Amino acid sequence: MTQQNQVFSFDIEEDDLFDYGYEQPGSIPGTLSIEKDATPPECFLIDYNSQKAILVTNLTPEDCQEYMNLDSVSWFNVGGLGNEDFFLRLGKVFRLHPLTLEDIVNAPQKPKIEYNQEQLVIIANMAIPKPHNQGFWLEQVSLVITKKYILTVQEEPDRDCFEPIRQRIKLQKGNIRLKGTDYLAYALWDSIIDGFFPVLDIYSEKIEDLEDEVISNPTSQTLAEIYQVRRELLALRRAIWSQRTALSSLIRDGSVLIDDEIVLYLRDCYDHAVQIVDLIETYRELSSGLTDIYLSAMSNKMNEIMKLLTVISTIFIPLTFIAGIYGMNFNYDTSPWNMPELNYYWGYPLCLGLMIAIAFGLIVFFWRQGWFDKVSFEQQKKER
Amino acid sequence: MTQQNQVFSFDIEEDDLFDYGYEQPGSIPGTLSIEKDATPPECFLIDYNSQKAILVTNLTPEDCQEYMNLDSVSWFNVGGLGNEDFFLRLGKVFRLHPLTLEDIVNAPQKPKIEYNQEQLVIIANMAIPKPHNQGFWLEQVSLVITKKYILTVQEEPDRDCFEPIRQRIKLQKGNIRLKGTDYLAYALWDSIIDGFFPVLDIYSEKIEDLEDEVISNPTSQTLAEIYQVRRELLALRRAIWSQRTALSSLIRDGSVLIDDEIVLYLRDCYDHAVQIVDLIETYRELSSGLTDIYLSAMSNKMNEIMKLLTVISTIFIPLTFIAGIYGMNFNYDTSPWNMPELNYYWGYPLCLGLMIAIAFGLIVFFWRQGWFDKVSFEQQKKER
Amino acid sequence: MTQQNQVFSFDIEEDDLFDYGYEQPGSIPGTLSIEKDATPPECFLIDYNSQKAILVTNLTPEDCQEYMNLDSVSWFNVGGLGNEDFFLRLGKVFRLHPLTLEDIVNAPQKPKIEYNQEQLVIIANMAIPKPHNQGFWLEQVSLVITKKYILTVQEEPDRDCFEPIRQRIKLQKGNIRLKGTDYLAYALWDSIIDGFFPVLDIYSEKIEDLEDEVISNPTSQTLAEIYQVRRELLALRRAIWSQRTALSSLIRDGSVLIDDEIVLYLRDCYDHAVQIVDLIETYRELSSGLTDIYLSAMSNKMNEIMKLLTVISTIFIPLTFIAGIYGMNFNYDTSPWNMPELNYYWGYPLCLGLMIAIAFGLIVFFWRQGWFDKVSFEQQKKER
Amino acid sequence: MTQQNQVFSFDIEEDDLFDYGYEQPGSIPGTLSIEKDATPPECFLIDYNSQKAILVTNLTPEDCQEYMNLDSVSWFNVGGLGNEDFFLRLGKVFRLHPLTLEDIVNAPQKPKIEYNQEQLVIIANMAIPKPHNQGFWLEQVSLVITKKYILTVQEEPDRDCFEPIRQRIKLQKGNIRLKGTDYLAYALWDSIIDGFFPVLDIYSEKIEDLEDEVISNPTSQTLAEIYQVRRELLALRRAIWSQRTALSSLIRDGSVLIDDEIVLYLRDCYDHAVQIVDLIETYRELSSGLTDIYLSAMSNKMNEIMKLLTVISTIFIPLTFIAGIYGMNFNYDTSPWNMPELNYYWGYPLCLGLMIAIAFGLIVFFWRQGWFDKVSFEQQKKER
Amino acid sequence: MTQQNQVFSFDIEEDDLFDYGYEQPGSIPGTLSIEKDATPPECFLIDYNSQKAILVTNLTPEDCQEYMNLDSVSWFNVGGLGNEDFFLRLGKVFRLHPLTLEDIVNAPQKPKIEYNQEQLVIIANMAIPKPHNQGFWLEQVSLVITKKYILTVQEEPDRDCFEPIRQRIKLQKGNIRLKGTDYLAYALWDSIIDGFFPVLDIYSEKIEDLEDEVISNPTSQTLAEIYQVRRELLALRRAIWSQRTALSSLIRDGSVLIDDEIVLYLRDCYDHAVQIVDLIETYRELSSGLTDIYLSAMSNKMNEIMKLLTVISTIFIPLTFIAGIYGMNFNYDTSPWNMPELNYYWGYPLCLGLMIAIAFGLIVFFWRQGWFDKVSFEQQKKER
Ligand SMILES: [Mg+2]
Ligand SMILES: [Mg+2]
Ligand SMILES: [Mg+2]
Ligand SMILES: [Mg+2]
Ligand SMILES: [Mg+2]
Ligand SMILES: [Mg+2]
Ligand SMILES: [Mg+2]
Ligand SMILES: [Mg+2]
Ligand SMILES: [Mg+2]
Ligand SMILES: [Mg+2]
Ligand SMILES: [Mg+2]
Ligand SMILES: [Mg+2]
Ligand SMILES: [Mg+2]
Ligand SMILES: [Mg+2]
Ligand SMILES: [Mg+2]
Ligand SMILES: [Mg+2]
Ligand SMILES: [Mg+2]
Ligand SMILES: [Mg+2]
Ligand SMILES: [Mg+2]
Ligand SMILES: [Mg+2]
Ligand SMILES: [Mg+2]
Ligand SMILES: [Mg+2]
Ligand SMILES: [Mg+2]
Ligand SMILES: [Mg+2]
Ligand SMILES: [Mg+2]
Ligand SMILES: [Mg+2]
Ligand SMILES: [Mg+2]
Ligand SMILES: [Mg+2]
Ligand SMILES: [Mg+2]
Ligand SMILES: [Mg+2]
Ligand SMILES: [Mg+2]
Repeated sequence: MTQQNQVFSFDIEEDDLFDYGYEQPGSIPGTLSIEKDATPPECFLIDYNSQKAILVTNLTPEDCQEYMNLDSVSWFNVGGLGNEDFFLRLGKVFRLHPLTLEDIVNAPQKPKIEYNQEQLVIIANMAIPKPHNQGFWLEQVSLVITKKYILTVQEEPDRDCFEPIRQRIKLQKGNIRLKGTDYLAYALWDSIIDGFFPVLDIYSEKIEDLEDEVISNPTSQTLAEIYQVRRELLALRRAIWSQRTALSSLIRDGSVLIDDEIVLYLRDCYDHAVQIVDLIETYRELSSGLTDIYLSAMSNKMNEIMKLLTVISTIFIPLTFIAGIYGMNFNYDTSPWNMPELNYYWGYPLCLGLMIAIAFGLIVFFWRQGWFDKVSFEQQKKER
Repeated sequence: MTQQNQVFSFDIEEDDLFDYGYEQPGSIPGTLSIEKDATPPECFLIDYNSQKAILVTNLTPEDCQEYMNLDSVSWFNVGGLGNEDFFLRLGKVFRLHPLTLEDIVNAPQKPKIEYNQEQLVIIANMAIPKPHNQGFWLEQVSLVITKKYILTVQEEPDRDCFEPIRQRIKLQKGNIRLKGTDYLAYALWDSIIDGFFPVLDIYSEKIEDLEDEVISNPTSQTLAEIYQVRRELLALRRAIWSQRTALSSLIRDGSVLIDDEIVLYLRDCYDHAVQIVDLIETYRELSSGLTDIYLSAMSNKMNEIMKLLTVISTIFIPLTFIAGIYGMNFNYDTSPWNMPELNYYWGYPLCLGLMIAIAFGLIVFFWRQGWFDKVSFEQQKKER
Repeated sequence: MTQQNQVFSFDIEEDDLFDYGYEQPGSIPGTLSIEKDATPPECFLIDYNSQKAILVTNLTPEDCQEYMNLDSVSWFNVGGLGNEDFFLRLGKVFRLHPLTLEDIVNAPQKPKIEYNQEQLVIIANMAIPKPHNQGFWLEQVSLVITKKYILTVQEEPDRDCFEPIRQRIKLQKGNIRLKGTDYLAYALWDSIIDGFFPVLDIYSEKIEDLEDEVISNPTSQTLAEIYQVRRELLALRRAIWSQRTALSSLIRDGSVLIDDEIVLYLRDCYDHAVQIVDLIETYRELSSGLTDIYLSAMSNKMNEIMKLLTVISTIFIPLTFIAGIYGMNFNYDTSPWNMPELNYYWGYPLCLGLMIAIAFGLIVFFWRQGWFDKVSFEQQKKER
Repeated sequence: MTQQNQVFSFDIEEDDLFDYGYEQPGSIPGTLSIEKDATPPECFLIDYNSQKAILVTNLTPEDCQEYMNLDSVSWFNVGGLGNEDFFLRLGKVFRLHPLTLEDIVNAPQKPKIEYNQEQLVIIANMAIPKPHNQGFWLEQVSLVITKKYILTVQEEPDRDCFEPIRQRIKLQKGNIRLKGTDYLAYALWDSIIDGFFPVLDIYSEKIEDLEDEVISNPTSQTLAEIYQVRRELLALRRAIWSQRTALSSLIRDGSVLIDDEIVLYLRDCYDHAVQIVDLIETYRELSSGLTDIYLSAMSNKMNEIMKLLTVISTIFIPLTFIAGIYGMNFNYDTSPWNMPELNYYWGYPLCLGLMIAIAFGLIVFFWRQGWFDKVSFEQQKKER
Repeated sequence: MTQQNQVFSFDIEEDDLFDYGYEQPGSIPGTLSIEKDATPPECFLIDYNSQKAILVTNLTPEDCQEYMNLDSVSWFNVGGLGNEDFFLRLGKVFRLHPLTLEDIVNAPQKPKIEYNQEQLVIIANMAIPKPHNQGFWLEQVSLVITKKYILTVQEEPDRDCFEPIRQRIKLQKGNIRLKGTDYLAYALWDSIIDGFFPVLDIYSEKIEDLEDEVISNPTSQTLAEIYQVRRELLALRRAIWSQRTALSSLIRDGSVLIDDEIVLYLRDCYDHAVQIVDLIETYRELSSGLTDIYLSAMSNKMNEIMKLLTVISTIFIPLTFIAGIYGMNFNYDTSPWNMPELNYYWGYPLCLGLMIAIAFGLIVFFWRQGWFDKVSFEQQKKER
């Protein structure tokens, strides 16, 4: 059995950063495509105003109806996409257009914003860092906003970045309890956007590590890691880019559901989205520059290997040739011209001397060519 | 006879992904250019309203006339482009402008949309997956839309993505039977656009496979496959890009033939086109990153080969030189300085010992240089 | 005399694809710069209406005057730019602005369109395929259009793509004889634009050939051919790009000289220009992908060469070392430890056996490393 | 212990050119995030009009109140960000919006401009050259501008580029003392923008040095330096790009706080920003061209090494073979055909002569191939 | 002392193509920064109308005053920037805004156009070819245009491209003497723009030469030359790009100082600027394609070197091994199995025969592999 020569021993992890949700081509608009391993949905409600804040868990879609039209701010949160019937009922209760429901359930979709008079629908994308700096999950979260309530739907019940918001509501931090659904919507989207910063920190550090590694000790693993960084930055860029566009179009066009004061806050949020896009582009340029250095480091290594081979060969091949000469068996007895050196009194010492002289000459030649310069280069650096 | 050295044994398949249809330069506008091997056209009709849905097959162009002005929705489907006379008659019956007829028959054209008061003409492009994940066919399909009927013309009668639509009409699934020609047009174009997703699945998986292959066992075939993936993604991008533009211009400009409600559906369709364009760009970036890794894997392989040659040469060349020394024939009889070692009691064992010492020293040197590190690197990885 | 080592034996042909016409900086506007080897101009006239079509040859500029204001369509065709006096008189007769005359004569200029109330001037660029698929000529052709006549000026009298138009006029094919100068202008420009398609066919085939060549048998000629293809595609793109822009601006702005019906035809012509631009970009991307494969094929070839050297060296160097050992002259007479093997009864056969064992071991090692895999890879492919 | 083979001995310095300031995701808008090692803030005031100019140091936020509404121009300068309480009080005194305060304190932010009726806020970025041409610091400086005063906040109290402005105010140079806050704002921003020119000088010279180095003596350090130059130019571009955009939007939109005459000055400032962007792009293109030359220089070095090895091997391998032939021990006694050469009278001299002839032939061959051309190439250059 | 190994012996010439003029950051707007080695300014006047044309030399700024308001066209030409006082006086006489004066004197600035009611200021950039095709100088020339006079300021008194204009005025060629300052301004700028064509001719030829060189005989000098060409094209592009933009904005916005008829001429001038930009981009693409060929030619050379080494080694290593075998000293006396071949009657001839057979076999193998194909490839080409 043939054992293949494994060039890299590092493996690119399988992930779903470039997945996309779609239903069967030609199917009826509004068809929901539920993945087999999707988490079953759970719904809970946070209902608050300046006086009170209550939490209701385990709601069915129909349970939501009684809270929908209260004057308080009602935040319905659905986590998990694994139940077609649940979402069909949810769509009916919240009067969602079939195409909107499709976008919410057939995750991930491209982030976007959609308006009508009554509802504002935001399809957003959270970047949640995985533990131990092992990259991140991209999770779709959909926001349906009206004057009275907000409905958020996310892929996993316990994987979001909304905990600080829940705390601000519960503990009455800032003035979130004094404001309406538009402020809550801003707070949610802002925490989604700002959630990209800690993820970017991972890549900032990875690139710094790779810069050192590619220069001090490049291995085949290094390039695979550079490729993975570029791949993950590409996924991040896709996620933030469309959200930036959606934010910009919301700020430009406005909406009756969004107060003018809140637009100011959204603009701050937009600034951050722009900054994130800009940082990602910067990291992408840096990591593509690293590829160049890696290839050059490989070619440097090859130069070093070839230099060693050339030095050894160039020194010993002539010496071996001389030894070969005096290993010939020409018969001195038949002619005084046949290898008289073999009978000289100083023949052998002279021969060894010649060999040493040649070796020394070649070493000096290589040294003057700078082939042994590594050490002196180190010193040269210190002397500067 | 010279046998050339075949570098790659993998072959890039000949396909017609980058073909284009054109008539002889300078010919009369409206000249039809029929390819020799084109399939002869067949025409059938699906005529439906909320009450009934009938199928009429084997229609001649003139047969169509009696159905064209019925109040029901009449969907004429022509498959095959191989009959000039048929299409000239078809053009007369459906009052097609000669330039429109030219676009329909001289396939493939660039996808586009063209309006006039009476007719809306869409030139679209279907991507039909070939069996066994072997790429895809690109097939032009033209739609001529009026208030009363839709005429579709495709290159092959049995290669389209409309079967689910026909089933929805036949089995009265969804509310297609309640709507007009504009909804049918949407449904057709939507199934064309969504038909790109299964094709993209092929490339998503191919890229994942190539990522593993380029890292674990890159061969010359790997790069040829990367090239083919890039080539086919290029063809896909050309096909979807113009359709995205056409959709966007239809949504922006509207048409008297398209109801406002349908525009909402078209916007969903447009979202998918945008998502497909975005995915294709992403895959193109990934596959171009793979080329970098491949080249580096090649250069790594070379490094390994050169290391082996250098290790073997560097160890044995000095030893062979020593053996050469003691193979010289200097005459001990004429001088006590001529190779007295040969007569030492421990001469031969000392010589062998020297050789072993040199070999051992060099092996230690290479080991400390990390030239044998492969195994320890594997362990190092596990230890993390 | 030193004979340089010729790396490529293929030569990039000198052509004038990137030439441009200009007069001495600072010269009076309207200065004509006639090239020495320019063909002397010949002028002929095709004058037609629905009843008749006549051909008048060998016209002087002044001869043109009597035909210019006839109600029939008068097409003056001048071929050859090699006579300053001729063009100064032509400019006077046709009342051309000095700067227009400069553009017509100092060919090649960037294609463009210029309007005034009375005249529409189009500077276009024909791509004429050379015989035997040897590339193409780019030839400037200028059109001056009024309600009564069209004047066309081209660089060579017998190198244009207007013959089919002349035949359509002569044989009354289509309805060209029923229409005005605007339709003739469209027909001429359309045949110029469509004339790029046969040229693109050459490159479509060349790229297919190069794909096969770069994979099966890349030589230094292959890359030179890829470069030449990229170079010629670049020239084609320059020529079509500006014409696309000119067409688009004519369609957008309209002109009193162009009937609304003709605009429809121009739009078809514009579609083709867009398709040609798109195809050229596609071919450019493909050919730039081929460069990657070529470089990798080179590096594969190097790997194969180095593998052969390494296999041969690695097998024979240890064997030669052993032969060297037993070629040493240690004196058995002075010590029983000095090379007793030489006197063993089975000494020589054992030594040969050791050599064979080492060689066999190394061959097995290389075989398991996959260094001889070429053949098995072929089989592997068939087995799929 | 394994000593890894260090490919480059040059180190990429850790810097914070790509840092960015952000508060915890989900936190209340206006949350200040103070870095641990931030300098404590100091505030001083320069208050001037055409008659007088006074300096007041060590102001608390509350101290500022009495100067804010004087008719003279009051320039409050805060240096250092390390005190949350200080900035909360500052925000209250100067009536800063919480989001503005956040932008000022959570440095660095993306440069931008923000207007309201009362205040104009500019977030700018200074590039301060480090001593000994060792790159530069990027420091955020925020300007809050009203009709009566300007508040500037910078990261470090003693690292800015405003000293010449302070001198102009103190020594009444130019007419700064005769103008209002808008002229001061222009003067400050202009000195920030112009401060990029001396930094660019560093890179202009570095690139010139690298051009020489990469051609005359490329080492592994050279590429690391090219990478560092590209990295720092990237940081510079990010800093200037957004300021250019901010300037352009201020000029386009105007502001009640900015006099028409000052817009003329701002346009000059904008010109410089554009020129800086343009220079940075130019330097980036040059440095990316240097990478190509570097890689080719590496491959040239390899060619030289391989040429040496090939010359030595090709000359000595055949000679050693001949010596090997005549080192064989075929027994002349058993046959006259067994190596009779060994007994020829001129055997040994003929053998040496053959060797010399072969060596000479090979040297001539290599010389004619141009493998020893280096010297003659130098001469060839002089002869031109 | 270590002699470094010089990889390239070609040197990139120091030039000031990427220089830029700026005054000390923070200095008073309008500060003039005079370079030490700047030429002292000389001013002369050409004053003309249809009747007369006079030349007045050695004017002081104050001398200009009496000519400024004459009805004739007065063209003041200042050459040299080396005198701050001169320019301060000039600014006062011609009522130049301090920022305009700064732009004129602190050369080079980015080319641009600036309007006010009274003056039109153009900052342009001349490309003057150096003798012997050695590149070009970029020289700033500033034009201040009013109804009555034109003031031009250039860096060197005797390095401009206006001589043909002066001749046209002096010798009354064309109708320049009949027109106003706007026509003169056009004529000057047109000659500046057209002056780029002869410079482009240099690069057109250099690229053609490099195409031949890179294919027939690439040396390390070739790549350095390609880099220099790319560098100089980059400088040219910077110079023309901004002038194109300035021209386009002048044509679009118009000016009271420019007659409608002259706009037609400016549009011709704009066409040339566009054509130059386009040519430069084309040359840049060609030269970047040359880099690919160069790298591949290098790798081809390496392949040739390695092939030679491999052929020689592969042929001689086995032969040397056989010679080594029969150079062993196994003692035939102690066993009939110890190297009986040495005593065969035909031993030596058979051994030589074996060697010849192996050598011949290997040569045939390499020949069939196509390693000696060079010559036959030449023939193959001729046979086509
Ligand atoms: Mg995997
Ligand atoms: Mg998957
Ligand atoms: Mg759907
Ligand atoms: Mg998911
Ligand atoms: Mg902010
Ligand atoms: Mg934020
Ligand atoms: Mg093929
Ligand atoms: Mg084909
Ligand atoms: Mg046509
Ligand atoms: Mg087809
Ligand atoms: Mg959707
Ligand atoms: Mg869809
Ligand atoms: Mg290489
Ligand atoms: Mg040539
Ligand atoms: Mg030429
Ligand atoms: Mg001119
Ligand atoms: Mg012109
Ligand atoms: Mg020509
Ligand atoms: Mg068409
Ligand atoms: Mg056409
Ligand atoms: Mg570091
Ligand atoms: Mg850090
Ligand atoms: Mg915040
Ligand atoms: Mg900082
Ligand atoms: Mg400035
Ligand atoms: Mg230099
Ligand atoms: Mg300088
Ligand atoms: Mg200034
Ligand atoms: Mg200025
Ligand atoms: Mg200068
Ligand atoms: Mg011109």
